[in-house]
Amino acid sequence: MCHEIFGFVMIGGTMNNYLTNHLRSSYNPACEQYHNFKIYSNKSGWSDFFIGPNLVYSHRTTPYTPPFFPEKLHTHTYYEICIFLSGKITYVVSSNEVFPLRGGILCIPPGISHTARLIEKSEYDRFVFYFDTKAFEFLGPGSLPAFLCKADADYLTVNSEFRGQYYYLLEQLDYMTTHLDGDISLQCFSCILQLLLLIDSHAQPGRECFSKLPPKVLQIKTYIDQNFQTLSSTAEIADHFFYSREYISRTFKQYFNTNLSEYIMGKKIEAAKQALNSGQSVTQAFNASGYRSMSAFINAFRTVTSMQPSAYRKQLKG
Amino acid sequence: MCHEIFGFVMIGGTMNNYLTNHLRSSYNPACEQYHNFKIYSNKSGWSDFFIGPNLVYSHRTTPYTPPFFPEKLHTHTYYEICIFLSGKITYVVSSNEVFPLRGGILCIPPGISHTARLIEKSEYDRFVFYFDTKAFEFLGPGSLPAFLCKADADYLTVNSEFRGQYYYLLEQLDYMTTHLDGDISLQCFSCILQLLLLIDSHAQPGRECFSKLPPKVLQIKTYIDQNFQTLSSTAEIADHFFYSREYISRTFKQYFNTNLSEYIMGKKIEAAKQALNSGQSVTQAFNASGYRSMSAFINAFRTVTSMQPSAYRKQLKG
Repeated sequence: MCHEIFGFVMIGGTMNNYLTNHLRSSYNPACEQYHNFKIYSNKSGWSDFFIGPNLVYSHRTTPYTPPFFPEKLHTHTYYEICIFLSGKITYVVSSNEVFPLRGGILCIPPGISHTARLIEKSEYDRFVFYFDTKAFEFLGPGSLPAFLCKADADYLTVNSEFRGQYYYLLEQLDYMTTHLDGDISLQCFSCILQLLLLIDSHAQPGRECFSKLPPKVLQIKTYIDQNFQTLSSTAEIADHFFYSREYISRTFKQYFNTNLSEYIMGKKIEAAKQALNSGQSVTQAFNASGYRSMSAFINAFRTVTSMQPSAYRKQLKG
Repeated sequence: MCHEIFGFVMIGGTMNNYLTNHLRSSYNPACEQYHNFKIYSNKSGWSDFFIGPNLVYSHRTTPYTPPFFPEKLHTHTYYEICIFLSGKITYVVSSNEVFPLRGGILCIPPGISHTARLIEKSEYDRFVFYFDTKAFEFLGPGSLPAFLCKADADYLTVNSEFRGQYYYLLEQLDYMTTHLDGDISLQCFSCILQLLLLIDSHAQPGRECFSKLPPKVLQIKTYIDQNFQTLSSTAEIADHFFYSREYISRTFKQYFNTNLSEYIMGKKIEAAKQALNSGQSVTQAFNASGYRSMSAFINAFRTVTSMQPSAYRKQLKG
């Protein structure tokens, strides 16, 4: 049954990235039930609902302890809206840090890097919406709610007089997905639409929860983003900034939940994938990555994508 | 500008019948404005809003006097939902007559013949929704609200405790389409979805407003529907039922707003069109129509469709 669903969603286009990259890696590959739209749930009790092929809704409550909160800095090709409910966490998104309050809305456009940092042991509870730009295309161009038509991430809070309605809609969505049987995708879609329109009309930037990352953290990240091709070790970066290797590794890990070396590998393979996506050869992708040996490149590509570069290229053409 | 819009909607498929048959014939071919979805308005002040390519919403208020209410018995390939507000009218739909009350909902599935009869001079006010089965397909199969998944027409009334919310949604839709600028298709779609879901959950068949057409009227119509190919004059039908020609013509006209001879012609040409639609030749379509002379057939075809049969056939292939 899972296969059929995968097949169906694949047709949808870019949202398949969600399935292949996110779900397959972090989810238990067993469908619990399939009410025309509930498709996946993992060990910790999350469940994701596909509402049409281009919109995913999920309510995620997990009692985290620090070593089990390994969300690395990442980007994807679809929108993410995260509605924070509770937990001792902060978000790192683009070059900012967000200290969310209950009901706060983090909007992440495609291509913006982000992660969540666990401050201390806590139950992290949130609603998450993933959607492709295609989700509202059936209404013609220009139908995406205005608050989503921004190039960078934003953190919004709903004006106090509309908060009752806002929480009511979230409760309703939660109730429908957990208590109702049959095909309720139309009801869920209507509820999500009302939620998005309410946010569009009655939410404001929550500047008090938003701050720039510390300059030294941003400098390190910018330096890597601009020079990842020629960088090969943490030592090189530490030397450039006159920091110790330990200090720079710890600082980077602290803010982005990812090892420096792993992040550099990710950037290199991302560049290689972009080259392959634009029709270039494996040799050209190898050059774009900045690796000096082909075997190191192939190993890294396999680590990141679980595929050989040549297989990845072939699959693009298929 | 109109041409572009026609082009756009044509892509949508069956809803183009709405444009080609309904709008082109009854509307002033001048676009008043085009806010991404308001597309057509006629002399009497109606305006139709395309909300995506498969859904049309219209609020129609017209002070009718009997000779100017020439809605003939007709069918179409899309759903129609008519929400009655005021007017001295009755509906004739399938083999029933409906005496609507304010807020009553007439649901007409594709292929069901229907018309409205003006009882006396009055302002006929109603909301109309036309939509293609494709309208909710983006959410996957089975997403059409259940109250629409019926083979025959139905008349529903919203339960009294939900009437406040029901009229509020209708008011909101009316306000949005007449007062707001910019692309508001997402807002309108959300409102219509809420309206359909409210009807789906909280409306009941309004049997007290529903009655079978008088048996003699039904007998005449059924006789024509079964024998239209061989019938050529009102006299034949009158003879069959032992009625006078005048009586049978007047009765038919009274219930179906259409002349008997015109109705028979319509049935014959419909059969010819179906033959052409299924790939048959003009000669086969001529045989299906029951006409005895090719020139009479071609004349009738042109009267009904404004096209030669050969041109109609060619256009199907294009």
